[in-house]
Amino acid sequence: MSGWVKIAGLGPGNEALVTPEVTAALAEATDVVGYIPYVARVAERPGLTLHASDNRVEIDRSQHALRMAAEGKRVVVVSSGDPGVFAMAAAVFEALESGPDTWRDIPVEVLPGITAMLAAAARAGAPLGHDFCAINLSDNLKPWAVIEKRLRLAAQADFAMAFYNPRSKSRPEGFVKTLEILRQECEPERLILFARAVCRPDEAIHIATLAEATPDMADMQTVVIVGSSLTRVIDRPIGPIVYTPRSTPE
Amino acid sequence: MSGWVKIAGLGPGNEALVTPEVTAALAEATDVVGYIPYVARVAERPGLTLHASDNRVEIDRSQHALRMAAEGKRVVVVSSGDPGVFAMAAAVFEALESGPDTWRDIPVEVLPGITAMLAAAARAGAPLGHDFCAINLSDNLKPWAVIEKRLRLAAQADFAMAFYNPRSKSRPEGFVKTLEILRQECEPERLILFARAVCRPDEAIHIATLAEATPDMADMQTVVIVGSSLTRVIDRPIGPIVYTPRSTPE
Repeated sequence: MSGWVKIAGLGPGNEALVTPEVTAALAEATDVVGYIPYVARVAERPGLTLHASDNRVEIDRSQHALRMAAEGKRVVVVSSGDPGVFAMAAAVFEALESGPDTWRDIPVEVLPGITAMLAAAARAGAPLGHDFCAINLSDNLKPWAVIEKRLRLAAQADFAMAFYNPRSKSRPEGFVKTLEILRQECEPERLILFARAVCRPDEAIHIATLAEATPDMADMQTVVIVGSSLTRVIDRPIGPIVYTPRSTPE
Repeated sequence: MSGWVKIAGLGPGNEALVTPEVTAALAEATDVVGYIPYVARVAERPGLTLHASDNRVEIDRSQHALRMAAEGKRVVVVSSGDPGVFAMAAAVFEALESGPDTWRDIPVEVLPGITAMLAAAARAGAPLGHDFCAINLSDNLKPWAVIEKRLRLAAQADFAMAFYNPRSKSRPEGFVKTLEILRQECEPERLILFARAVCRPDEAIHIATLAEATPDMADMQTVVIVGSSLTRVIDRPIGPIVYTPRSTPE
Protein backbone atom coordinates (compact mmCIF):
# COMPACT_ATOMS: atom_id res chain seq x y z
CA MET A 1 0.00 0.00 0.00
CA SER A 2 1.51 3.34 -0.96
CA GLY A 3 0.59 6.43 0.97
CA TRP A 4 -0.45 9.88 -0.09
CA VAL A 5 -1.51 13.25 1.26
CA LYS A 6 -4.53 15.14 -0.06
CA ILE A 7 -5.04 18.65 1.28
CA ALA A 8 -8.78 19.14 1.01
CA GLY A 9 -11.03 22.18 1.25
CA LEU A 10 -14.30 21.57 3.09
CA GLY A 11 -15.81 24.87 1.96
CA PRO A 12 -17.36 27.42 4.31
CA GLY A 13 -19.43 25.04 6.43
CA ASN A 14 -22.45 23.81 4.48
CA GLU A 15 -22.15 20.19 3.29
CA ALA A 16 -23.87 21.14 0.01
CA LEU A 17 -20.71 23.10 -0.83
CA VAL A 18 -18.27 20.19 -0.38
CA THR A 19 -17.11 18.97 -3.80
CA PRO A 20 -17.55 15.30 -4.79
CA GLU A 21 -13.74 15.15 -5.20
CA VAL A 22 -13.27 15.94 -1.50
CA THR A 23 -16.02 13.52 -0.45
CA ALA A 24 -14.30 10.76 -2.46
CA ALA A 25 -10.91 11.51 -0.87
CA LEU A 26 -12.42 11.29 2.62
CA ALA A 27 -14.01 7.92 1.70
CA GLU A 28 -10.58 6.55 0.70
CA ALA A 29 -8.61 7.98 3.64
CA THR A 30 -7.11 6.00 6.51
CA ASP A 31 -6.33 9.18 8.48
CA VAL A 32 -7.70 12.71 8.66
CA VAL A 33 -5.76 15.52 10.32
CA GLY A 34 -6.78 19.11 10.95
CA TYR A 35 -7.93 21.82 13.29
CA ILE A 36 -10.55 20.55 15.78
CA PRO A 37 -13.71 22.17 14.31
CA TYR A 38 -12.85 21.06 10.77
CA VAL A 39 -12.10 17.45 11.75
CA ALA A 40 -15.43 17.48 13.60
CA ARG A 41 -17.13 17.87 10.20
CA VAL A 42 -15.78 14.46 9.03
CA ALA A 43 -18.02 11.46 9.76
CA GLU A 44 -16.40 8.66 11.78
CA ARG A 45 -16.27 5.20 10.18
CA PRO A 46 -14.37 1.93 10.73
CA GLY A 47 -10.85 2.12 9.29
CA LEU A 48 -10.61 5.88 9.61
CA THR A 49 -8.61 7.57 12.36
CA LEU A 50 -9.35 11.23 13.10
CA HIS A 51 -6.47 13.37 14.42
CA ALA A 52 -7.80 16.73 15.61
CA SER A 53 -5.29 19.33 16.74
CA ASP A 54 -5.43 22.87 18.07
CA ASN A 55 -4.93 26.07 16.12
CA ARG A 56 -1.41 27.43 15.54
CA VAL A 57 0.25 24.00 15.21
CA GLU A 58 0.04 23.92 11.40
CA ILE A 59 3.63 22.76 10.86
CA ASP A 60 3.42 19.97 13.48
CA ARG A 61 0.18 18.81 11.89
CA SER A 62 1.72 18.90 8.41
CA GLN A 63 4.76 16.88 9.53
CA HIS A 64 2.43 14.36 11.17
CA ALA A 65 0.49 13.99 7.91
CA LEU A 66 3.66 13.53 5.83
CA ARG A 67 5.15 11.02 8.31
CA MET A 68 1.97 8.92 8.19
CA ALA A 69 1.89 9.04 4.38
CA ALA A 70 5.55 7.95 4.29
CA GLU A 71 4.44 4.92 6.34
CA GLY A 72 1.82 4.08 3.72
CA LYS A 73 -1.26 5.82 5.11
CA ARG A 74 -3.77 7.67 2.96
CA VAL A 75 -3.99 11.01 4.72
CA VAL A 76 -6.44 13.85 4.16
CA VAL A 77 -5.49 17.21 5.68
CA VAL A 78 -8.73 19.15 6.07
CA SER A 79 -9.05 22.93 5.82
CA SER A 80 -12.15 25.03 5.82
CA GLY A 81 -12.74 26.96 2.62
CA ASP A 82 -10.03 26.40 0.03
CA PRO A 83 -6.76 24.92 1.34
CA GLY A 84 -4.73 27.22 -0.92
CA VAL A 85 -6.16 30.47 0.47
CA PHE A 86 -4.75 31.33 3.93
CA ALA A 87 -5.10 27.68 4.94
CA MET A 88 -3.20 24.38 5.20
CA ALA A 89 -1.66 23.92 1.72
CA ALA A 90 1.23 26.36 2.21
CA ALA A 91 1.94 24.89 5.68
CA VAL A 92 2.17 21.35 4.28
CA PHE A 93 4.56 22.53 1.54
CA GLU A 94 6.74 24.37 4.10
CA ALA A 95 6.97 21.13 6.11
CA LEU A 96 7.68 19.10 2.98
CA GLU A 97 10.41 21.49 1.82
CA SER A 98 12.29 21.40 5.13
CA GLY A 99 11.67 17.69 5.80
CA PRO A 100 13.63 14.56 4.82
CA ASP A 101 14.33 14.03 1.11
CA THR A 102 12.19 10.87 1.10
CA TRP A 103 9.09 13.02 1.67
CA ARG A 104 9.55 14.39 -1.86
CA ASP A 105 8.43 11.00 -3.22
CA ILE A 106 5.04 11.22 -1.48
CA PRO A 107 2.17 12.09 -3.82
CA VAL A 108 0.63 15.31 -2.48
CA GLU A 109 -2.48 16.77 -4.03
CA VAL A 110 -4.47 19.91 -3.26
CA LEU A 111 -8.27 19.55 -3.62
CA PRO A 112 -9.78 23.01 -4.00
CA GLY A 113 -12.84 24.19 -2.09
CA ILE A 114 -15.20 27.16 -1.92
CA THR A 115 -13.20 29.80 -0.09
CA ALA A 116 -14.95 32.09 2.41
CA MET A 117 -14.78 35.29 0.33
CA LEU A 118 -16.51 33.65 -2.65
CA ALA A 119 -19.23 32.17 -0.44
CA ALA A 120 -19.73 35.54 1.25
CA ALA A 121 -19.79 37.35 -2.08
CA ALA A 122 -22.37 34.91 -3.43
CA ARG A 123 -24.65 35.42 -0.42
CA ALA A 124 -24.55 39.21 -0.88
CA GLY A 125 -24.66 39.40 -4.68
CA ALA A 126 -21.42 39.88 -6.62
CA PRO A 127 -19.20 42.40 -4.81
CA LEU A 128 -16.10 40.67 -6.25
CA GLY A 129 -17.55 40.84 -9.76
CA HIS A 130 -14.57 42.84 -10.96
CA ASP A 131 -10.82 43.07 -10.13
CA PHE A 132 -10.19 42.35 -6.45
CA CYS A 133 -7.60 41.31 -3.90
CA ALA A 134 -7.50 39.06 -0.82
CA ILE A 135 -5.50 40.12 2.23
CA ASN A 136 -4.90 38.22 5.47
CA LEU A 137 -5.11 40.91 8.17
CA SER A 138 -3.37 38.76 10.79
CA ASP A 139 0.09 40.05 11.62
CA ASN A 140 1.14 36.79 13.30
CA LEU A 141 3.41 35.92 10.38
CA LYS A 142 4.08 39.25 8.68
CA PRO A 143 4.93 42.78 9.81
CA TRP A 144 2.02 45.20 10.14
CA ALA A 145 3.86 47.61 7.81
CA VAL A 146 3.38 45.12 4.94
CA ILE A 147 -0.35 44.95 5.62
CA GLU A 148 -0.64 48.74 5.73
CA LYS A 149 1.27 49.13 2.46
CA ARG A 150 -0.93 46.55 0.73
CA LEU A 151 -4.11 48.19 1.99
CA ARG A 152 -3.07 51.62 0.68
CA LEU A 153 -1.93 50.32 -2.73
CA ALA A 154 -5.05 48.15 -3.10
CA ALA A 155 -7.25 51.18 -2.38
CA GLN A 156 -5.27 53.28 -4.89
CA ALA A 157 -5.68 50.49 -7.47
CA ASP A 158 -9.45 50.58 -6.74
CA PHE A 159 -9.58 46.85 -6.15
CA ALA A 160 -12.49 45.39 -4.22
CA MET A 161 -10.84 43.79 -1.18
CA ALA A 162 -11.58 40.68 0.86
CA PHE A 163 -10.09 40.48 4.35
CA TYR A 164 -9.47 37.15 6.08
CA ASN A 165 -8.83 36.97 9.85
CA PRO A 166 -9.81 40.62 10.33
CA ARG A 167 -9.82 40.62 14.12
CA SER A 168 -9.01 38.35 17.04
CA LYS A 169 -9.02 38.79 20.81
CA SER A 170 -5.22 38.81 20.80
CA ARG A 171 -5.03 41.36 17.95
CA PRO A 172 -7.92 43.79 18.45
CA GLU A 173 -6.00 46.80 17.08
CA GLY A 174 -5.34 45.68 13.51
CA PHE A 175 -8.87 46.14 12.26
CA VAL A 176 -9.15 49.53 13.98
CA LYS A 177 -6.08 50.62 12.02
CA THR A 178 -7.46 49.04 8.83
CA LEU A 179 -10.61 51.16 9.01
CA GLU A 180 -8.49 54.28 9.64
CA ILE A 181 -6.38 53.56 6.56
CA LEU A 182 -9.47 52.93 4.43
CA ARG A 183 -10.97 56.25 5.62
CA GLN A 184 -7.82 58.04 4.47
CA GLU A 185 -7.86 56.35 1.05
CA CYS A 186 -11.56 55.90 0.17
CA GLU A 187 -14.76 57.97 0.17
CA PRO A 188 -17.15 57.67 3.18
CA GLU A 189 -19.89 56.09 1.01
CA ARG A 190 -17.67 53.09 0.15
CA LEU A 191 -19.62 49.86 0.82
CA ILE A 192 -18.34 47.26 3.29
CA LEU A 193 -19.82 43.82 3.78
CA PHE A 194 -19.40 42.00 7.07
CA ALA A 195 -20.17 38.32 6.48
CA ARG A 196 -20.11 36.22 9.64
CA ALA A 197 -20.39 32.40 9.73
CA VAL A 198 -21.28 32.29 6.03
CA CYS A 199 -23.40 29.28 4.97
CA ARG A 200 -23.75 28.14 8.57
CA PRO A 201 -26.95 28.22 10.67
CA ASP A 202 -25.83 31.38 12.51
CA GLU A 203 -24.92 33.27 9.31
CA ALA A 204 -25.18 37.06 9.62
CA ILE A 205 -24.50 39.45 6.75
CA HIS A 206 -24.33 43.17 7.40
CA ILE A 207 -23.86 45.95 4.83
CA ALA A 208 -22.42 49.27 5.98
CA THR A 209 -20.77 52.29 4.47
CA LEU A 210 -17.19 53.06 5.43
CA ALA A 211 -18.56 56.01 7.47
CA GLU A 212 -20.83 53.66 9.44
CA ALA A 213 -18.39 50.76 9.88
CA THR A 214 -17.06 50.07 13.39
CA PRO A 215 -14.35 47.61 14.44
CA ASP A 216 -16.75 45.45 16.46
CA MET A 217 -18.63 44.52 13.27
CA ALA A 218 -15.85 41.96 12.59
CA ASP A 219 -14.48 38.99 14.51
CA MET A 220 -12.45 35.89 13.56
CA GLN A 221 -15.59 34.26 12.09
CA THR A 222 -16.08 37.21 9.73
CA VAL A 223 -14.95 37.78 6.18
CA VAL A 224 -14.96 41.48 5.35
CA ILE A 225 -15.44 42.61 1.74
CA VAL A 226 -14.76 46.23 0.85
CA GLY A 227 -16.23 47.26 -2.47
CA SER A 228 -14.41 49.15 -5.21
CA SER A 229 -15.51 52.72 -5.95
CA LEU A 230 -18.06 51.26 -8.40
CA THR A 231 -19.68 48.72 -6.04
CA ARG A 232 -23.34 49.50 -5.45
CA VAL A 233 -26.59 48.30 -3.89
CA ILE A 234 -29.81 47.30 -5.62
CA ASP A 235 -32.69 47.87 -3.22
CA ARG A 236 -35.39 45.20 -3.36
CA PRO A 237 -38.44 44.38 -1.24
CA ILE A 238 -36.89 40.94 -0.61
CA GLY A 239 -33.48 42.29 0.45
CA PRO A 240 -30.57 44.24 -1.00
CA ILE A 241 -28.05 42.99 -3.56
CA VAL A 242 -24.46 44.30 -3.45
CA TYR A 243 -22.54 44.04 -6.71
CA THR A 244 -19.66 45.45 -8.70
CA PRO A 245 -20.51 46.04 -12.37
CA ARG A 246 -18.33 44.62 -15.11
CA SER A 247 -17.59 47.93 -16.83
CA THR A 248 -15.18 50.63 -15.72
CA PRO A 249 -15.95 54.01 -17.34
CA GLU A 250 -13.22 55.88 -19.22
CA MET B 1 -45.56 27.91 -9.27
CA SER B 2 -43.27 30.79 -8.47
CA GLY B 3 -40.12 31.33 -10.46
CA TRP B 4 -36.56 32.00 -9.48
CA VAL B 5 -33.08 32.52 -10.91
CA LYS B 6 -30.03 30.70 -9.60
CA ILE B 7 -26.68 31.78 -11.02
CA ALA B 8 -24.57 28.67 -10.70
CA GLY B 9 -20.84 28.01 -10.96
CA LEU B 10 -19.96 24.76 -12.74
CA GLY B 11 -16.29 24.92 -11.67
CA PRO B 12 -13.37 24.60 -14.07
CA GLY B 13 -14.61 21.64 -16.08
CA ASN B 14 -14.31 18.43 -14.06
CA GLU B 15 -17.65 17.13 -12.79
CA ALA B 16 -15.99 16.11 -9.49
CA LEU B 17 -15.63 19.83 -8.76
CA VAL B 18 -19.35 20.69 -9.17
CA THR B 19 -20.90 21.28 -5.74
CA PRO B 20 -23.97 19.27 -4.66
CA GLU B 21 -25.80 22.61 -4.30
CA VAL B 22 -25.36 23.28 -8.03
CA THR B 23 -26.31 19.71 -8.96
CA ALA B 24 -29.52 20.06 -6.91
CA ALA B 25 -30.39 23.38 -8.57
CA LEU B 26 -29.98 21.85 -12.04
CA ALA B 27 -32.24 18.95 -11.00
CA GLU B 28 -35.00 21.43 -10.01
CA ALA B 29 -34.64 23.74 -13.01
CA THR B 30 -37.14 24.12 -15.85
CA ASP B 31 -34.68 26.17 -17.93
CA VAL B 32 -30.92 26.54 -18.18
CA VAL B 33 -29.30 29.49 -19.94
CA GLY B 34 -25.64 30.15 -20.65
CA TYR B 35 -22.76 30.28 -23.05
CA ILE B 36 -22.76 27.31 -25.47
CA PRO B 37 -19.87 25.25 -23.98
CA TYR B 38 -21.19 25.61 -20.43
CA VAL B 39 -24.77 24.64 -21.31
CA ALA B 40 -23.26 21.63 -23.12
CA ARG B 41 -22.10 20.38 -19.70
CA VAL B 42 -25.72 20.09 -18.46
CA ALA B 43 -27.43 16.72 -19.07
CA GLU B 44 -30.66 16.85 -21.04
CA ARG B 45 -33.81 15.49 -19.35
CA PRO B 46 -37.58 15.71 -19.85
CA GLY B 47 -38.97 18.96 -18.46
CA LEU B 48 -35.71 20.85 -18.90
CA THR B 49 -35.15 23.33 -21.72
CA LEU B 50 -31.58 24.28 -22.56
CA HIS B 51 -30.96 27.77 -23.97
CA ALA B 52 -27.40 28.05 -25.23
CA SER B 53 -26.20 31.42 -26.49
CA ASP B 54 -23.01 32.85 -27.88
CA ASN B 55 -20.34 34.80 -26.05
CA ARG B 56 -20.72 38.58 -25.57
CA VAL B 57 -24.51 38.51 -25.18
CA GLU B 58 -24.41 38.40 -21.37
CA ILE B 59 -27.06 41.11 -20.86
CA ASP B 60 -29.50 39.60 -23.38
CA ARG B 61 -29.05 36.22 -21.71
CA SER B 62 -29.61 37.74 -18.27
CA GLN B 63 -32.79 39.51 -19.38
CA HIS B 64 -34.03 36.27 -20.91
CA ALA B 65 -33.43 34.45 -17.61
CA LEU B 66 -35.21 37.15 -15.57
CA ARG B 67 -38.17 37.28 -18.00
CA MET B 68 -38.62 33.50 -17.78
CA ALA B 69 -38.41 33.60 -13.97
CA ALA B 70 -41.03 36.39 -13.91
CA GLU B 71 -43.27 33.98 -15.86
CA GLY B 72 -42.81 31.33 -13.17
CA LYS B 73 -39.89 29.31 -14.56
CA ARG B 74 -37.08 27.95 -12.42
CA VAL B 75 -34.03 29.21 -14.27
CA VAL B 76 -30.39 28.30 -13.73
CA VAL B 77 -27.85 30.61 -15.36
CA VAL B 78 -24.66 28.57 -15.74
CA SER B 79 -21.14 29.99 -15.58
CA SER B 80 -17.85 28.16 -15.60
CA GLY B 81 -15.81 28.57 -12.43
CA ASP B 82 -17.50 30.83 -9.87
CA PRO B 83 -20.31 33.04 -11.21
CA GLY B 84 -19.12 35.95 -9.04
CA VAL B 85 -15.59 36.09 -10.50
CA PHE B 86 -15.52 37.63 -14.01
CA ALA B 87 -18.64 35.66 -14.91
CA MET B 88 -22.45 35.87 -15.12
CA ALA B 89 -23.49 37.14 -11.64
CA ALA B 90 -22.60 40.80 -12.25
CA ALA B 91 -24.30 40.69 -15.69
CA VAL B 92 -27.55 39.36 -14.20
CA PHE B 93 -27.52 42.10 -11.55
CA GLU B 94 -26.89 44.78 -14.19
CA ALA B 95 -29.93 43.49 -16.10
CA LEU B 96 -32.01 43.31 -12.95
CA GLU B 97 -31.07 46.86 -11.88
CA SER B 98 -32.04 48.39 -15.22
CA GLY B 99 -35.09 46.16 -15.78
CA PRO B 100 -38.77 46.54 -14.75
CA ASP B 101 -39.50 47.02 -11.04
CA THR B 102 -41.35 43.70 -10.90
CA TRP B 103 -38.05 41.87 -11.48
CA ARG B 104 -36.98 43.00 -8.00
CA ASP B 105 -39.47 40.52 -6.53
CA ILE B 106 -37.79 37.53 -8.24
CA PRO B 107 -35.69 35.43 -5.86
CA VAL B 108 -32.15 35.46 -7.26
CA GLU B 109 -29.42 33.36 -5.69
CA VAL B 110 -25.73 32.97 -6.52
CA LEU B 111 -24.35 29.44 -6.09
CA PRO B 112 -20.56 29.63 -5.77
CA GLY B 113 -18.17 27.37 -7.66
CA ILE B 114 -14.46 26.58 -7.88
CA THR B 115 -13.04 29.51 -9.81
CA ALA B 116 -10.24 28.90 -12.33
CA MET B 117 -7.43 30.55 -10.35
CA LEU B 118 -8.06 28.35 -7.31
CA ALA B 119 -8.20 25.19 -9.42
CA ALA B 120 -5.00 26.21 -11.20
CA ALA B 121 -3.29 27.06 -7.90
CA ALA B 122 -4.29 23.69 -6.46
CA ARG B 123 -2.89 21.80 -9.44
CA ALA B 124 0.48 23.59 -9.10
CA GLY B 125 0.76 23.68 -5.29
CA ALA B 126 -0.21 26.85 -3.43
CA PRO B 127 1.01 29.92 -5.34
CA LEU B 128 -1.91 31.95 -3.90
CA GLY B 129 -1.03 30.84 -0.35
CA HIS B 130 -0.58 34.41 0.74
CA ASP B 131 -2.06 37.84 -0.17
CA PHE B 132 -3.06 37.99 -3.85
CA CYS B 133 -5.19 39.77 -6.42
CA ALA B 134 -7.28 38.78 -9.42
CA ILE B 135 -7.30 40.95 -12.55
CA ASN B 136 -9.32 40.55 -15.74
CA LEU B 137 -6.87 41.49 -18.52
CA SER B 138 -9.62 41.99 -21.09
CA ASP B 139 -10.03 45.64 -22.02
CA ASN B 140 -13.43 45.08 -23.64
CA LEU B 141 -15.18 46.81 -20.72
CA LYS B 142 -12.45 48.94 -19.13
CA PRO B 143 -9.71 51.24 -20.37
CA TRP B 144 -6.26 49.72 -20.72
CA ALA B 145 -4.90 52.52 -18.47
CA VAL B 146 -6.86 51.05 -15.54
CA ILE B 147 -5.35 47.62 -16.16
CA GLU B 148 -1.85 49.06 -16.35
CA LYS B 149 -2.30 51.04 -13.13
CA ARG B 150 -3.59 47.96 -11.30
CA LEU B 151 -0.70 45.81 -12.56
CA ARG B 152 1.91 48.32 -11.34
CA LEU B 153 0.29 48.85 -7.93
CA ALA B 154 -0.23 45.10 -7.44
CA ALA B 155 3.45 44.47 -8.20
CA GLN B 156 4.47 47.24 -5.80
CA ALA B 157 2.22 45.69 -3.13
CA ASP B 158 3.97 42.36 -3.79
CA PHE B 159 0.68 40.54 -4.30
CA ALA B 160 0.66 37.24 -6.12
CA MET B 161 -1.57 37.91 -9.14
CA ALA B 162 -4.05 35.80 -11.08
CA PHE B 163 -4.95 36.96 -14.58
CA TYR B 164 -8.23 35.97 -16.24
CA ASN B 165 -8.74 36.35 -20.01
CA PRO B 166 -5.06 37.11 -20.59
CA ARG B 167 -5.12 36.98 -24.36
CA SER B 168 -7.54 36.61 -27.25
CA LYS B 169 -7.23 36.69 -31.02
CA SER B 170 -8.90 40.10 -31.09
CA ARG B 171 -6.66 41.50 -28.32
CA PRO B 172 -3.20 40.01 -28.84
CA GLU B 173 -1.34 43.09 -27.57
CA GLY B 174 -2.58 43.27 -23.97
CA PHE B 175 -0.57 40.34 -22.67
CA VAL B 176 2.55 41.58 -24.50
CA LYS B 177 2.19 44.87 -22.62
CA THR B 178 1.45 43.01 -19.36
CA LEU B 179 4.75 41.14 -19.55
CA GLU B 180 6.57 44.41 -20.29
CA ILE B 181 5.04 46.07 -17.22
CA LEU B 182 5.90 43.08 -15.02
CA ARG B 183 9.50 43.19 -16.29
CA GLN B 184 9.70 46.85 -15.24
CA GLU B 185 8.28 46.15 -11.77
CA CYS B 186 9.56 42.66 -10.82
CA GLU B 187 12.84 40.73 -10.83
CA PRO B 188 13.60 38.37 -13.79
CA GLU B 189 13.44 35.28 -11.53
CA ARG B 190 9.79 35.93 -10.63
CA LEU B 191 7.76 32.73 -11.17
CA ILE B 192 4.83 32.64 -13.58
CA LEU B 193 2.41 29.78 -13.96
CA PHE B 194 0.52 29.24 -17.22
CA ALA B 195 -2.40 26.92 -16.50
CA ARG B 196 -4.37 25.94 -19.59
CA ALA B 197 -7.65 23.97 -19.58
CA VAL B 198 -7.29 23.25 -15.86
CA CYS B 199 -9.01 20.04 -14.68
CA ARG B 200 -9.94 19.11 -18.24
CA PRO B 201 -8.47 16.23 -20.28
CA ASP B 202 -6.18 18.58 -22.22
CA GLU B 203 -4.84 20.33 -19.10
CA ALA B 204 -1.33 21.79 -19.52
CA ILE B 205 0.55 23.54 -16.73
CA HIS B 206 3.79 25.34 -17.48
CA ILE B 207 6.09 27.08 -14.99
CA ALA B 208 8.42 29.82 -16.27
CA THR B 209 10.39 32.70 -14.86
CA LEU B 210 9.47 36.22 -15.92
CA ALA B 211 12.67 36.25 -18.01
CA GLU B 212 11.55 33.11 -19.86
CA ALA B 213 7.86 33.99 -20.28
CA THR B 214 6.60 34.76 -23.77
CA PRO B 215 3.16 36.06 -24.82
CA ASP B 216 2.27 32.89 -26.72
CA MET B 217 2.35 30.89 -23.48
CA ALA B 218 -1.18 32.25 -22.78
CA ASP B 219 -4.48 32.09 -24.63
CA MET B 220 -8.15 32.55 -23.63
CA GLN B 221 -8.19 29.05 -22.06
CA THR B 222 -5.28 29.99 -19.78
CA VAL B 223 -5.22 31.35 -16.26
CA VAL B 224 -1.89 33.03 -15.53
CA ILE B 225 -0.62 33.20 -11.96
CA VAL B 226 2.34 35.46 -11.17
CA GLY B 227 3.98 34.69 -7.85
CA SER B 228 4.89 37.23 -5.19
CA SER B 229 8.59 37.87 -4.54
CA LEU B 230 8.46 34.99 -2.00
CA THR B 231 6.88 32.35 -4.27
CA ARG B 232 9.21 29.42 -4.82
CA VAL B 233 9.56 25.92 -6.29
CA ILE B 234 10.14 22.64 -4.48
CA ASP B 235 11.92 20.26 -6.83
CA ARG B 236 10.75 16.65 -6.58
CA PRO B 237 11.34 13.50 -8.64
CA ILE B 238 7.55 13.34 -9.18
CA GLY B 239 7.23 16.95 -10.34
CA PRO B 240 7.67 20.48 -8.99
CA ILE B 241 5.48 22.24 -6.45
CA VAL B 242 5.03 26.03 -6.65
CA TYR B 243 4.00 27.72 -3.42
CA THR B 244 4.00 30.98 -1.51
CA PRO B 245 4.97 30.58 2.14
CA ARG B 246 2.76 31.96 4.89
CA SER B 247 5.43 34.16 6.50
CA THR B 248 6.76 37.50 5.27
CA PRO B 249 10.14 38.37 6.79
CA GLU B 250 10.62 41.74 8.56
